[in-house]
Amino acid sequence: MLLRIDHVGIACHDLEEKIRLFQELFELEVVAREVNEEQGVKEAMLRVAGDSYIQLLEPLSPDSPVGRFLARRGEGVHHVAFGVGDVSDAMGRIAEKGVRLLDEQPRHGSMGSSIAFLHPKDVGGMLTELVQAAKRK
Amino acid sequence: MLLRIDHVGIACHDLEEKIRLFQELFELEVVAREVNEEQGVKEAMLRVAGDSYIQLLEPLSPDSPVGRFLARRGEGVHHVAFGVGDVSDAMGRIAEKGVRLLDEQPRHGSMGSSIAFLHPKDVGGMLTELVQAAKRK
Repeated sequence: MLLRIDHVGIACHDLEEKIRLFQELFELEVVAREVNEEQGVKEAMLRVAGDSYIQLLEPLSPDSPVGRFLARRGEGVHHVAFGVGDVSDAMGRIAEKGVRLLDEQPRHGSMGSSIAFLHPKDVGGMLTELVQAAKRK
Repeated sequence: MLLRIDHVGIACHDLEEKIRLFQELFELEVVAREVNEEQGVKEAMLRVAGDSYIQLLEPLSPDSPVGRFLARRGEGVHHVAFGVGDVSDAMGRIAEKGVRLLDEQPRHGSMGSSIAFLHPKDVGGMLTELVQAAKRK
């Protein structure tokens, strides 16, 4: 079902500062920057290798999900995302096993992907994202 | 410098229960089980794809690092590990950039690997592991 560890999402207070940190420490390249109003974040994707990324997330406001996470937990890993071939199919198969989905329908993720989140309490305490990558043109 | 996201390490109270959960939810295969006395954990590696894994970690005692993490944070993502070609070389290059290493020398990791941990405060709040995989025989 899972094709790869697509990305690790890291919540931070200052996106530009953390982009510089990860670029410098690990010699990573920024491959996308986006503002996702629906999720209340501005973000950057830094390629680790192939289709695996570090995603840096800065909240657009303190009362967004990532803003509340930062207030509660501080900076660090916010979620882990796994690549799947078909996100709707994966959502259905996982929901059948009793896992609560945080999204009823796939929504827009980074770089044109379709994504859905799973309830962390049903996945070992890990906020888990499923990612169907955009078709390459 | 980074070759892959090698694994996501998840702290849990009951290794066997969480192995069953991840096997069932995501159809993952257990490729290794180990007790690491030095780190105070028993663990399992479940292959996501290629050389990327979910690592499940149960503490051997409450006063081990993972035991203290569970008491403080509860179950969930404990660390993220990135594959490197030569862990000693990567440690040196990263230390030169001012990141504190939690290990002065590489130590033994899962499946015969050589590993080192970086201080989470210097890596965006993420406890970060570098992994040099064992040579295949």
